[in-house]
Amino acid sequence: MKKTVAEIAQLLDGRVVGNGEAQIEGVAGIEDAGQGEITFLESKKLSSFLQTTAASAIIVPQGTTSEGQTLICVEQPRLAFAKVMRLFYPSVPQAPHGIHPTAAIEKEVQLGNDVSIGAHVSIGAGAVIGDRAVLFPGVVVGPDSRIGHGTVIHANVTIREGVTIGADCIIHSGTVIGSDGFGYAQDDQGHLKIPQVGTVIVEDDVEIGANVTIDRGTLGATRIGHGVKIDNLVQIAHNVVIGPNSLLISQVGISGSTELGEGVILAGQVGVVGHIKIGDRSVVGAKSGVSKSIPSENVMFGIPARPINKSKRIEACLSRLPDLFKRVKELEKDQAPPSKEGE
Amino acid sequence: MKKTVAEIAQLLDGRVVGNGEAQIEGVAGIEDAGQGEITFLESKKLSSFLQTTAASAIIVPQGTTSEGQTLICVEQPRLAFAKVMRLFYPSVPQAPHGIHPTAAIEKEVQLGNDVSIGAHVSIGAGAVIGDRAVLFPGVVVGPDSRIGHGTVIHANVTIREGVTIGADCIIHSGTVIGSDGFGYAQDDQGHLKIPQVGTVIVEDDVEIGANVTIDRGTLGATRIGHGVKIDNLVQIAHNVVIGPNSLLISQVGISGSTELGEGVILAGQVGVVGHIKIGDRSVVGAKSGVSKSIPSENVMFGIPARPINKSKRIEACLSRLPDLFKRVKELEKDQAPPSKEGE
Amino acid sequence: MKKTVAEIAQLLDGRVVGNGEAQIEGVAGIEDAGQGEITFLESKKLSSFLQTTAASAIIVPQGTTSEGQTLICVEQPRLAFAKVMRLFYPSVPQAPHGIHPTAAIEKEVQLGNDVSIGAHVSIGAGAVIGDRAVLFPGVVVGPDSRIGHGTVIHANVTIREGVTIGADCIIHSGTVIGSDGFGYAQDDQGHLKIPQVGTVIVEDDVEIGANVTIDRGTLGATRIGHGVKIDNLVQIAHNVVIGPNSLLISQVGISGSTELGEGVILAGQVGVVGHIKIGDRSVVGAKSGVSKSIPSENVMFGIPARPINKSKRIEACLSRLPDLFKRVKELEKDQAPPSKEGE
Repeated sequence: MKKTVAEIAQLLDGRVVGNGEAQIEGVAGIEDAGQGEITFLESKKLSSFLQTTAASAIIVPQGTTSEGQTLICVEQPRLAFAKVMRLFYPSVPQAPHGIHPTAAIEKEVQLGNDVSIGAHVSIGAGAVIGDRAVLFPGVVVGPDSRIGHGTVIHANVTIREGVTIGADCIIHSGTVIGSDGFGYAQDDQGHLKIPQVGTVIVEDDVEIGANVTIDRGTLGATRIGHGVKIDNLVQIAHNVVIGPNSLLISQVGISGSTELGEGVILAGQVGVVGHIKIGDRSVVGAKSGVSKSIPSENVMFGIPARPINKSKRIEACLSRLPDLFKRVKELEKDQAPPSKEGE
Repeated sequence: MKKTVAEIAQLLDGRVVGNGEAQIEGVAGIEDAGQGEITFLESKKLSSFLQTTAASAIIVPQGTTSEGQTLICVEQPRLAFAKVMRLFYPSVPQAPHGIHPTAAIEKEVQLGNDVSIGAHVSIGAGAVIGDRAVLFPGVVVGPDSRIGHGTVIHANVTIREGVTIGADCIIHSGTVIGSDGFGYAQDDQGHLKIPQVGTVIVEDDVEIGANVTIDRGTLGATRIGHGVKIDNLVQIAHNVVIGPNSLLISQVGISGSTELGEGVILAGQVGVVGHIKIGDRSVVGAKSGVSKSIPSENVMFGIPARPINKSKRIEACLSRLPDLFKRVKELEKDQAPPSKEGE
Repeated sequence: MKKTVAEIAQLLDGRVVGNGEAQIEGVAGIEDAGQGEITFLESKKLSSFLQTTAASAIIVPQGTTSEGQTLICVEQPRLAFAKVMRLFYPSVPQAPHGIHPTAAIEKEVQLGNDVSIGAHVSIGAGAVIGDRAVLFPGVVVGPDSRIGHGTVIHANVTIREGVTIGADCIIHSGTVIGSDGFGYAQDDQGHLKIPQVGTVIVEDDVEIGANVTIDRGTLGATRIGHGVKIDNLVQIAHNVVIGPNSLLISQVGISGSTELGEGVILAGQVGVVGHIKIGDRSVVGAKSGVSKSIPSENVMFGIPARPINKSKRIEACLSRLPDLFKRVKELEKDQAPPSKEGE
């Protein structure tokens, strides 16, 4: 594909400075980009890269200048970059063509139009695969599960029985959806397994990273709201509910029956106990441990998670804690009456 | 299946209040349950749900009352719930029938009676698969490994060569058992791999979650005791020994050669260093880091893990730490002789 | 294989004490070793095991003595142990013979000499598989990816399209290389996916544990330097660069665009934010959270990671923090003028 800078600027609702007729054929990072490529500058702080890049055009924040370069000035450079990337790289990478002869598809499966099913895929009886869905090699879809229209499931993913995946989802390799929740009752002999007979419902436009685990409900459903994005190696326990458009960064773990509101962000390696609620648009910093419910629009941090300002104050105190011990010792020395000093 | 409330009460050793002849056909959560379904109330604190549930019967703790409802009063509602779930949902969900024609089974494999082997399963030479074992699609069992009677292995699990899995185990999708331990010796060139030639022994009645990793011993065995339950995404390093009936919650990591006693509980995201021992029935709270051995029957928490009461006292102090700095400053001001104040 | 103690000592550049003609047929742990086996003692601290071992020979640190035992005294017992293990257990365990008939290999794939390709492997068009490479059952190699000479890929690994794996690498089961990075831009509707069109380059002699995830670059490459060793369940985000011979222990997570120098060690469960640098040979202790760049040859620990001596001082203070509160209260009581005491 070839586009002029002017055409791209129009798509981005941006203003061209320089040569609007320059031809663009691809996108590259600011240090790697060369002739015929467009790149982007996320913030003005990084402006030094403008001097040295060989890109034919650069998407920049409003108000950026760089003599001799062709710029597209936009309000939101990251969003503009996303749009340019989607323009030049629109499609799923090399989906399998049609249905591979080695795929094991039970007779009672309902296949949509234009599905792509790779080698060694297995689809259980009663499953429904939506139009244009793509199942890469080694994917296993259990009986009675439903995969929505246009959903892409990468290699070696396991979707257990009776699970529902919405439309236009992307599920990365090695992920397991619908495994049994971790539920036992103690009896005299040990831990008696509680059958896990619920399901998982993944709504539309959800992306789930690699080697993620999402357990089915004990009864009822574990639910992932529309537009949610989940990074690699995240654990979501039985009956958890993730509100729409929430973001879960890598290695997050959420315990059973906890509910996240809309637009919640959990940073990397956060852990959340079971049976609590995190309100809409609240944010929890990396490595925090959340042990109590959080109201909407709070920013929390720490183990246990506290309001971030409080955590930062404690944090600053910790650095000076050895010094505080000295100061207290000094005070005690000054104060002690001479006769008591021995002890 | 249909059972009367009275029949269920008998199984649970419980006392019926209300209509013992009501017919029950299934189990549901207290908010979702309707006509013909039984549900349960884990503790009296949640009694408000009793007013609104449409369930035909409710398992409740002794001493709970609710006018107009049919109750089964029991000593341990959670255990009773487990038993009712097992009554209504007794079986493995839709195991493959017989041996799928796409399974790749080496000639020297010994298959038990009534095994279920799914599509694209691979079983190496010398492996032994016990009676009634179930291998879902995509499972790989390496040469000379043994799978016990009645064990269920979900899709896309890898059991490496020479590993022993006991009877009546459940292994969830994506899990890897018998991968090489992380062992190297430094030489002039870099890290020289130490061959990992030991094995893994998983005893009977063990359940292992999804995307778990259990490394084989360098020499000798990594051992998972009978009745152990392991949640998703747990890491167990080479030569670790997990005592019977221990519980490892999601994302726990245990370093090489560490030994856990019987009935140990490690909560989510706990990390344990190598070469230590955690005594019988000790419990470690979520996100803790265990760097030293723990005697039996201790409850520990924190990074590093300390006795929980001590951790909680420190924790309470931390919240008041910024205030303590102010108080010490105040003391210093009060005490400072007027002439020294400048510094 | 049989070797005399003297022959082994020569290989290890060690000195024999005792019977150099004793025949050795295998290696075992010091508690398990018997007649015909050699074992090793990592440090003199463990010398008590020397009295009770039934091994025919023991590799020991210089200066160790044990009456009646045959010893090989060496400078570096761990390195010597590695070499003896490699002598007795030199090969990949039972690689598949040739190309299994169930493997799905696209026509345009280039296969090297003496490759081993297991059951249900899938290789996409344009891929190149090096000489003597071993692909265990269920491995998926995407289109246009390259696997180097002698590299071993264990069962159920996924290598996505366009990825490069060097020579003599080992990749353990369930691992995913080349999954999409976690990149979105916010628009009015939610999170707009930024296509992830870069790649992953794994250099030579790298070992990657089980169920690891390594995302491809957004643009450009995520790069794993030669000789790097990665433990199980590690997350490496898009555009991360890991310098040669670095060690990443289990459950580490590294965020996007961060760069590690040469010989860096991150202990278990460490988390690292994006866009920072960790200098050559720096070490970060278990469970730490790294939020800022670290210069070369620093040892860091804690959340947030601080120089380890500082972290240990703070740590020691924390244990005495409840006591400090008491001491300050005491000081306040002593100091308060009698009239003000009420408040």
